[in-house]
Amino acid sequence: MAVLRRLIGDALRRERLAQHRTLREVSSDARVSLGYLSEVERGQKEASSELLAAICDALEVPLSRVLRDVSDELALAELGAMHAVAAPVGTLPVPGARPSLVVNRAA
Amino acid sequence: MAVLRRLIGDALRRERLAQHRTLREVSSDARVSLGYLSEVERGQKEASSELLAAICDALEVPLSRVLRDVSDELALAELGAMHAVAAPVGTLPVPGARPSLVVNRAA
Repeated sequence: MAVLRRLIGDALRRERLAQHRTLREVSSDARVSLGYLSEVERGQKEASSELLAAICDALEVPLSRVLRDVSDELALAELGAMHAVAAPVGTLPVPGARPSLVVNRAA
Repeated sequence: MAVLRRLIGDALRRERLAQHRTLREVSSDARVSLGYLSEVERGQKEASSELLAAICDALEVPLSRVLRDVSDELALAELGAMHAVAAPVGTLPVPGARPSLVVNRAA
């Protein structure tokens, strides 16, 4: 199962790398330790609400956008898990097909 | 500022109440203590990724939907905060107006 803190960490890291910023820069701006930020990005530590907000502030990205991206990814993962359980043999998705096109709606 | 854990707690509580279920029932199904679930619902405790998933499972609601609802609420709160900072005097929103109609797009 997709673990929420890993998806959040991935989203934060993606955003930081897209801005070409280092862990050191963002951790300093967010006033969190470099080690903590690194652990959050790798999904090894749960970020508290306050620290998540501070990291998003430092990245100048709304927390709501990070959460939306994460919820979209999670929805795809949930769909995949549902399909894996619900699909009868012979209806497995074509590799690379969009999950929305292959989900078994009758399930 | 809207604290994430409070919005998540509100969303979980809303969902539970909509299902006419008690704290006791949901905490038992999720295998978390009643006190823990109560604290999470009141935004007094951060739920770990695993326990949040367990609570959503017990409520039979996808975590992605909870997160999406929360991100929508958070986006409105962020918009409100931005507007409060950015709006010149005389452009304050009409009470009850939709935020999307009153935000100062030039800001």
